[in-house]
Amino acid sequence: MKKKKVKTRTHNYKKHIGKAPGTLVYTGKKTEKQLKIESFDYTKDTITENVLTNIADVKAHKETDSVTWINIDGLNAITEIENIGKQYDLHPLVLEDIVNTAQRPKIDEYDDYLFVVLKMLYYDNEENIVIEQVSFILGKNYVLSFQESEGDVFDNVRERLRHGNGRIRGLKSDYLLYALIDAVVDNYFSIIETLGNKIEDLETDLFEGNAKEDISIEVQQLKREILKVRRAIFPLREIINRVEKGEHSLILQRTINYYRDIYDHLIQVSENIDIYREMIWSLMDMYMTTISNRMNEVMKVLTIISTIFIPLTFLAGLYGMNFEYIPELQYRYGYFVLLGVMFLMFLGLLYYFKRKKWL
Amino acid sequence: MKKKKVKTRTHNYKKHIGKAPGTLVYTGKKTEKQLKIESFDYTKDTITENVLTNIADVKAHKETDSVTWINIDGLNAITEIENIGKQYDLHPLVLEDIVNTAQRPKIDEYDDYLFVVLKMLYYDNEENIVIEQVSFILGKNYVLSFQESEGDVFDNVRERLRHGNGRIRGLKSDYLLYALIDAVVDNYFSIIETLGNKIEDLETDLFEGNAKEDISIEVQQLKREILKVRRAIFPLREIINRVEKGEHSLILQRTINYYRDIYDHLIQVSENIDIYREMIWSLMDMYMTTISNRMNEVMKVLTIISTIFIPLTFLAGLYGMNFEYIPELQYRYGYFVLLGVMFLMFLGLLYYFKRKKWL
Amino acid sequence: MKKKKVKTRTHNYKKHIGKAPGTLVYTGKKTEKQLKIESFDYTKDTITENVLTNIADVKAHKETDSVTWINIDGLNAITEIENIGKQYDLHPLVLEDIVNTAQRPKIDEYDDYLFVVLKMLYYDNEENIVIEQVSFILGKNYVLSFQESEGDVFDNVRERLRHGNGRIRGLKSDYLLYALIDAVVDNYFSIIETLGNKIEDLETDLFEGNAKEDISIEVQQLKREILKVRRAIFPLREIINRVEKGEHSLILQRTINYYRDIYDHLIQVSENIDIYREMIWSLMDMYMTTISNRMNEVMKVLTIISTIFIPLTFLAGLYGMNFEYIPELQYRYGYFVLLGVMFLMFLGLLYYFKRKKWL
Amino acid sequence: MKKKKVKTRTHNYKKHIGKAPGTLVYTGKKTEKQLKIESFDYTKDTITENVLTNIADVKAHKETDSVTWINIDGLNAITEIENIGKQYDLHPLVLEDIVNTAQRPKIDEYDDYLFVVLKMLYYDNEENIVIEQVSFILGKNYVLSFQESEGDVFDNVRERLRHGNGRIRGLKSDYLLYALIDAVVDNYFSIIETLGNKIEDLETDLFEGNAKEDISIEVQQLKREILKVRRAIFPLREIINRVEKGEHSLILQRTINYYRDIYDHLIQVSENIDIYREMIWSLMDMYMTTISNRMNEVMKVLTIISTIFIPLTFLAGLYGMNFEYIPELQYRYGYFVLLGVMFLMFLGLLYYFKRKKWL
Amino acid sequence: MKKKKVKTRTHNYKKHIGKAPGTLVYTGKKTEKQLKIESFDYTKDTITENVLTNIADVKAHKETDSVTWINIDGLNAITEIENIGKQYDLHPLVLEDIVNTAQRPKIDEYDDYLFVVLKMLYYDNEENIVIEQVSFILGKNYVLSFQESEGDVFDNVRERLRHGNGRIRGLKSDYLLYALIDAVVDNYFSIIETLGNKIEDLETDLFEGNAKEDISIEVQQLKREILKVRRAIFPLREIINRVEKGEHSLILQRTINYYRDIYDHLIQVSENIDIYREMIWSLMDMYMTTISNRMNEVMKVLTIISTIFIPLTFLAGLYGMNFEYIPELQYRYGYFVLLGVMFLMFLGLLYYFKRKKWL
Repeated sequence: MKKKKVKTRTHNYKKHIGKAPGTLVYTGKKTEKQLKIESFDYTKDTITENVLTNIADVKAHKETDSVTWINIDGLNAITEIENIGKQYDLHPLVLEDIVNTAQRPKIDEYDDYLFVVLKMLYYDNEENIVIEQVSFILGKNYVLSFQESEGDVFDNVRERLRHGNGRIRGLKSDYLLYALIDAVVDNYFSIIETLGNKIEDLETDLFEGNAKEDISIEVQQLKREILKVRRAIFPLREIINRVEKGEHSLILQRTINYYRDIYDHLIQVSENIDIYREMIWSLMDMYMTTISNRMNEVMKVLTIISTIFIPLTFLAGLYGMNFEYIPELQYRYGYFVLLGVMFLMFLGLLYYFKRKKWL
Repeated sequence: MKKKKVKTRTHNYKKHIGKAPGTLVYTGKKTEKQLKIESFDYTKDTITENVLTNIADVKAHKETDSVTWINIDGLNAITEIENIGKQYDLHPLVLEDIVNTAQRPKIDEYDDYLFVVLKMLYYDNEENIVIEQVSFILGKNYVLSFQESEGDVFDNVRERLRHGNGRIRGLKSDYLLYALIDAVVDNYFSIIETLGNKIEDLETDLFEGNAKEDISIEVQQLKREILKVRRAIFPLREIINRVEKGEHSLILQRTINYYRDIYDHLIQVSENIDIYREMIWSLMDMYMTTISNRMNEVMKVLTIISTIFIPLTFLAGLYGMNFEYIPELQYRYGYFVLLGVMFLMFLGLLYYFKRKKWL
Repeated sequence: MKKKKVKTRTHNYKKHIGKAPGTLVYTGKKTEKQLKIESFDYTKDTITENVLTNIADVKAHKETDSVTWINIDGLNAITEIENIGKQYDLHPLVLEDIVNTAQRPKIDEYDDYLFVVLKMLYYDNEENIVIEQVSFILGKNYVLSFQESEGDVFDNVRERLRHGNGRIRGLKSDYLLYALIDAVVDNYFSIIETLGNKIEDLETDLFEGNAKEDISIEVQQLKREILKVRRAIFPLREIINRVEKGEHSLILQRTINYYRDIYDHLIQVSENIDIYREMIWSLMDMYMTTISNRMNEVMKVLTIISTIFIPLTFLAGLYGMNFEYIPELQYRYGYFVLLGVMFLMFLGLLYYFKRKKWL
Repeated sequence: MKKKKVKTRTHNYKKHIGKAPGTLVYTGKKTEKQLKIESFDYTKDTITENVLTNIADVKAHKETDSVTWINIDGLNAITEIENIGKQYDLHPLVLEDIVNTAQRPKIDEYDDYLFVVLKMLYYDNEENIVIEQVSFILGKNYVLSFQESEGDVFDNVRERLRHGNGRIRGLKSDYLLYALIDAVVDNYFSIIETLGNKIEDLETDLFEGNAKEDISIEVQQLKREILKVRRAIFPLREIINRVEKGEHSLILQRTINYYRDIYDHLIQVSENIDIYREMIWSLMDMYMTTISNRMNEVMKVLTIISTIFIPLTFLAGLYGMNFEYIPELQYRYGYFVLLGVMFLMFLGLLYYFKRKKWL
Repeated sequence: MKKKKVKTRTHNYKKHIGKAPGTLVYTGKKTEKQLKIESFDYTKDTITENVLTNIADVKAHKETDSVTWINIDGLNAITEIENIGKQYDLHPLVLEDIVNTAQRPKIDEYDDYLFVVLKMLYYDNEENIVIEQVSFILGKNYVLSFQESEGDVFDNVRERLRHGNGRIRGLKSDYLLYALIDAVVDNYFSIIETLGNKIEDLETDLFEGNAKEDISIEVQQLKREILKVRRAIFPLREIINRVEKGEHSLILQRTINYYRDIYDHLIQVSENIDIYREMIWSLMDMYMTTISNRMNEVMKVLTIISTIFIPLTFLAGLYGMNFEYIPELQYRYGYFVLLGVMFLMFLGLLYYFKRKKWL
C-alpha cells in the first residue's frame, strides 16, 4: 500500500524563528507563478473589471466612491505586497500575517479596517485536502483579498457582481465581504460530504467483512483529515460569532443578519465534524470487536478439531503399542468395537459443541 | 443480515453551494404531492376552520383581530412559499431557512415576528427515525407553520381548538405557538422510549447469551440514531431556555411559565439521551468482555484436552516403537501397568485443573 | 442467575403525550391505598397534630398565624389533590408536576409560594433503589408536602416538632422546609454508603480471584444504579445553590446558613458518586486485565505441554515406522539411548521456559 | 498478597443521619487521648506560650490586644469544644463542622470571624495516606485551630513564633493563618513526591519486565490514593482563590500577596496530581500492551513447534501403518530418504518463520 | 534498551518545605559557574553594552533616562540576587520565585514593576527536552531578566539592539520585554516540530511493520514529553491573554498589538500540542490493533496446520494399530486408497480455509 503522508506544516514555522517582528516571510510553497491582481469596481448600476498590471493602479481605486474589490493571487511576491500594504496603510503585523500561511483563522480590528484570515479548503487531484489561506482587508469602501495561488471558490460571487444578481451590487463593502466568506464556508459542505462518504464506505467494508488488514491505517488518515479540517474551521466559528454580535463597527447592522446565516452554517459543519469524529471512534471499536470475533472463530475451529481427534489419536496409539500381551488385540472384532467406540466419542463431542453453540 | 444504512443527509448540502444568499432551494425529498394550506381562525367563542386553495386567501387572515393559525404542508412548492413570504413580509433568509430542511433548530427574532425552526421526530413503518423540519412564524395575532409533508403531531391541538378544551382558545398566538411546540416535544418522549426499549432488548440478549455475532452492528446503528436524535433535540433546549428568560417580547409574560414546562421536558429528554449513550458504551464494553470470556472458555477446553492427551499419546507412541530390545514390552502385565500409569496421570491432571478452577 | 432488571421509568412518559397542559395525570404505580393527610400546626409553645379526613379541613390551617405542615401521602387521588390546589391557589402546572412522578428535581418561584420537587431515595426489601418523588409548597406560614406513598424519612422531624427539640419550633416555615429537605439529603448518605460497600465487595472478589463470570453484569447494574442516583441528586445541588444565594424571598436570611449546610452535604454526596463512577470504570479495566492474564496462563500451560511433548511424540513415531532397514532399531541399547535423548530434550525445554519466566 | 484496603470513610456519615442540625457528633476515630490545648500570645516583642488545662482560661486571651493562637488537639471532647464555641460565640453549624471530620475543605464567613476547614495529609508508618481535618477560626486578633489528634506540621511555625524569625511576629492574625495554611500546603509537596516515586517505580518495573502479576492491584490502589488526595486538595484551591481576590475583609490587603503564593503552590500540586492521573492511565495501557505482547510470544512458540512437528509426526505415522503392501517400506534407503525429506521440510518451515519475522 | 528516565522535578520541592515564606532557596541544579551580569543601555541613537562585574553597578542604570536591559545568568548566587532585589526594591516573594525553578509560568503586578516567569525550552545534546526558567522584571525604563545558566535564545534580540534593526531601539522597555518573550515563544515552534517528527517517525515504523516490541515505551516517553511541554507552555497563554487585554498599565497601548501576535503564536503551539496528544493516543490504538492482527495471523497458521494434519495423523495411527484382524490392511491397494482419501481430505480443508478467507 502506498502511504499517503499527511503533512502538518510544522516545518514551515522554522523559517520564521529569530526574525524581527513584522518581517515578511512567505511560508507557503514557493511557486514561480507571478502575482495576479484582479479588481472589481462597482456601484448599483455600473461595474468595471480589470486585471491590474501595476501595483500603483491599486491606489487609484481606494479614493473612488464606489465599492472596490481587489483580489491578489500569489503571496510569494513579498515586495509587491509590501507596496500594497503601504498604499492602504496596513500595520506591519497584518502584512506579516497575510504571507505567513501557517496563520490561524482570526479577526483583528484596526482603526479604519478589519483584518480577517480564514482557510479555503478543497480536495486536490489526488484526493488530499488542501488548505489555502485567504486574508481579507475590509475598508470603508473596499475589500482586499489575498490568496496563495490562483483558483478559488469566488467565481459565483464574480458572476453575481457582473450580472448584478441578488442584492450584492446594491450594498456596501461589508456585504461583499459577507458574500466572499459565505462562498468559502459553502464550500466546507462539500469537504465534509466527501469525508462523510469516506467514513460510510469504510463502515460498509467493515459490515460486509471486506475490510482489508490495513483498515486501521485508513482510519488513522481519516482521523487526521478530520483534525485538519476541524482546526481550519472551528476558530472561524468564534470569529463570525463576534461579528454577528456587532462588535465591529465596519460591518453595518443591516448586514449582520447575513453573518448570522454564516454562523448557522458553521455550526452545522462543526456538528457534522464532531459526529464524524465520534463515528470514527466507533468504527475503530467495531474493528477491534471484529478482530476479536474472528480470532474467536479461528480458535473454535482449532479447538473443535483438536478436541475431537487428539483423544482418538491417543486410542489409536494405544493399540499400536508392541506389548507382547494386549488382550484386546486378539479379539476377532476388537478393531470394529474400537471403531464403534471412536464413532460414539465423535458423536458425543459433536453434541457437546452443539450445546455450547460452537457449531 | 440486511443492512439499514442510516443516512446523514450530507448530500443535501451540495444543492445549495454557490447560490446567492436568499435563494430558495428545497433540500428535502422531492415529492409530487401538492401544497396543502390549512387555516384556523379563532377567538374565545368562535372558530373557523378552512382548507385554503388560493394563496391570496392567506392575506385576508392577517388583518383579522382573532388569532389565526395557518399550517402549510409541502415545502417543494417554492413559488407559493415565496408568495406567502411576500404577504407576511418575511426576510429572504427566513424563507431560505424554511425550505432548507438541513436547518439546525434555531430561533431568530425579527422586528415584528419570531422565527422558530425545530425538528419533528417519528418512526416510519420500517422502524427508522424520520426527522421532519417544522418552522413557525409567530406574529402578533397569527402563527404560520411549515412542514415538509402531511401528517404531524398536531391533531391534539386541532381538537382542543375545535372543542375549546383547556385555555387555548382564550389566549393569544404565543400560547398557540407554545401548544404546537409542546406537541412536538411531547412526541420526543415516545422516541426515546423506543430507543430505551431497543437498548434494553440488546442488553437482555447479551445477558442471556443470545447475542448474535452482529451485535456490534446493531450497537453502531443505535449509536447513530442517538446521535441523530441528540442533534435534533439538543439545540432546542437552548432556544426554549432563551424564550423562558423572556428575551422575546412577542411572548407574553403569562405564557412564559408554560415555556418553562417545555424546558423541563427537554431537560428530561436530554438526560435520558445522555444516559442511553452511556448505557450503549457500557454495552459495547460488556460485549468485549463477553467475547474475551468466551475465548477464554474455548482456550480452556483446548488446553485441558491437549494437556491430558498429548503426554498420554507420547507414552503410547513410545511403546509403539520397533526397537529390538525394549524390556517393558516383554513384561506379562506391562500393558496393564502402563494403562494404570496413564489413568493416574489422567487423574492427576484433572485434579490440577480442578485446583486451578478451570473445571 | 436471576436477572434484576433496572427499570428507567421511560414507559411512564407515554400516558402524558397529547394531553392539554395542566391536565393531572398520575404517572407512578397505581396503588389502591387511600390518600392520607397529616397536619402539624405549631408555634414556639404549642403544637397540634391531626390526621385529616376531610380535604376542606386543610383550608382552615392556612389562615392561622402559626406554622402549618400538611403532609399528603398518595398521589393517585387526583381529585383531592386538585381540591387542595384550589384551596391554596396553586398554578395548574404545579399540580401537574406534583402528580407527574417522572419530574426532575426543580424549584419554581410563584408569587406567594415556592414549589420544590426532589427525590427521596431508599432501598426496598430486594435491595433495589427506590426513587420516590416528594414535592413541597412553601408558603408564608405553611409547608405542604406531597409523597407517592406512606413511609418516609421525616419521622425525625416529627419527633423534633412534637418535643420541641432544637430550633425548629421557634422558627418559621422556611426552617421547616429546610429540616424536611435536610432529612431527605441526610438519607442520601446511607444510599451512597450501600453503593460504596457493593463496589468494595466486587473489588474484593476481583482481588481474591473469586469473581464470578457474570461480574460484568453486576458492574453494569451498579453503573445503572449510580446513574439513577446521580440523576436524582445532581439537579438538587444547583437548586440549593440558588436558594443559598438568596434568590428566593420566602426563605429568610437567617435560614440561609442552614441551606448552605445542605449544599455542602450535596457536594459531598456528589463527589462520592463521581468517585464511585471512576472506581467502577477502574474495576471494569481490572477485570479485563484479569481475563487477559488468565488467558495468558491458560495459553502458557498449553504451550509448555505441547512444546515438550509434540517433538518427543514425533521421535517416538519415527522409531515406530515399519521400514525394513532402520539401523538404530537393531542397536542393543537404542531404546535407552533414545530415552536419554528425550530426557535431555525435556530438561532443555524446562530450562528454556524457566529462563523465559513461564514457569 | 496482603491486601491494603483503602477506606473511604463513607461509614462515618451514618452516625449523623437523623440528628437535629447543629448537633455535635465526632465522626473520626474515637481515641481515649485527652484534649490538649496549647496557646501562643505574642506581640512584635513579647511571646507567651502555655499549655492550658482549663477551658475557661481560653476566654482570657480573647480580650488581649496581642495576637493569640490557640491550638486544640483532639475532637472527641465534645463538651469542651462546645464550651470554647460559647466563649468565642461560634455558630452551632461551625461547631458541628469542626467535629465532623468528613467535612469538605471550605471557607465560611461569619460576622466577626472566618471559618476555614482543610485537610492535613501525611503518610503513616504503614505508608498509607492519612487525612486529618484541621479547622481554623480567624478572628480580629486570634486564630483558633482544631486538629483530630496530636502531631502536626506546625512545628516550624511555632519555632518562628518563639524566635521571632521572619515577619510573623510583626504582623496580625491574618498572617498567622497564612503561615499555618502555608505549612499544611507545603506538606502536600512531600505527599505528591511520594506518589510520584511510586508511579515511577511501577513504571520501571513494567519497563524492565519485572512487573508482578498483581500490578493492576497496585495501579488500582495508586488511583485511589490519587483520588483521595485530589479530593482533599482541589476544593482548597478555590477557597484560596477567593481569599486572594480579597472577598474576606478579615484578611488585610497586605497579606493577600502571601495567599497568592499559596494559590500558586496549590496550582502546582494540582497539576502534578493531574499529570499523575494521566501517567497511571498510560501505565495501565502499557500493561495491557505488555500482556498482549507476551501472549503473542507464547502463541508464536506454540505455533512454531506445532507447525514444524505436526506434519513430521504425520509422516512418521504414515510409515508406521501396518498395511501389507507399502512399497516405500521395502526400499533399502527408504528410511534415510524420508529423514532427508523431513529435514528439508524442517528447513523450509524455519525459513518461512524467519521471513515472517517470527524468529 | 537504554531507558531514558524523564524526571519530573518533584524532588526539588522538598528543599523548600518548612522554610519561612520569602526565604531564597535555589531549587535548580547546583552549578559552580559564577554569576554573569550583562547590561544593555540604549536610546534611539545610542547603545552601551557591558558585562558587569560589580552588583553595585546595576544601581546606576536604574536612574538613567534610557532603556536598560540587565540580564543575569546563574541563580545559585543567592546573596547577589538578594542585593539586586534590594536595589530594585523587589518584594521578597518575587525573589523567592526567581530562584525557585519549579515555579509555574505566571505574571504578578506590583506597584511599580511587573514580574513575569516563563519557561525556555530546548533540546540538549542527548535529545532530552530541557526546561529552563526565565524571569523578567519590567520597570518603567528597565527590564531585568534572570536565567538559570548561560546560553539562551536572545542572541537575535541582542543583534537587533546592537544594530538598531526594526523598531526595538525606538520603543520603550515594554517593547523590549515583548521582544524577549517573543524570542522564547518563537523557539517553542522548533520544539513542537521535533516532537511532530518523532511522532511521524513512530507512525511510519508502525505502518511499515518495523515497529520494535518496545514501541509502547517510546510512546510513553513521547506522552511525557508532551505533558512536560504542555505544562510549561499552557499557563503562558492565559498570561499573555491578560496582557493583551490591557490589564497591566506598564505595557503601553501601542505595544499591545504585538502581544496579540505572541498570543496567536501560543494558540498555534497549543493546538499543535493537542493534536500531537490525540495522534499519540491514536498511535497506541493502532498498535493494539496491530498486535491483535498479528496474533490473529499466528493463530490462523496454527489452526490451519493443526486442522489439516491432526485428522490425517489419526488415520495413520488407526492403521498402525496391531489388531489381529483389520481387514483393510490386507487389501493389496489399501495403502494407496488411504493416501487418496487423505489427499482428498487435504484438498477439502484447503478449499474450506480458502472460502473462510484464511488463506
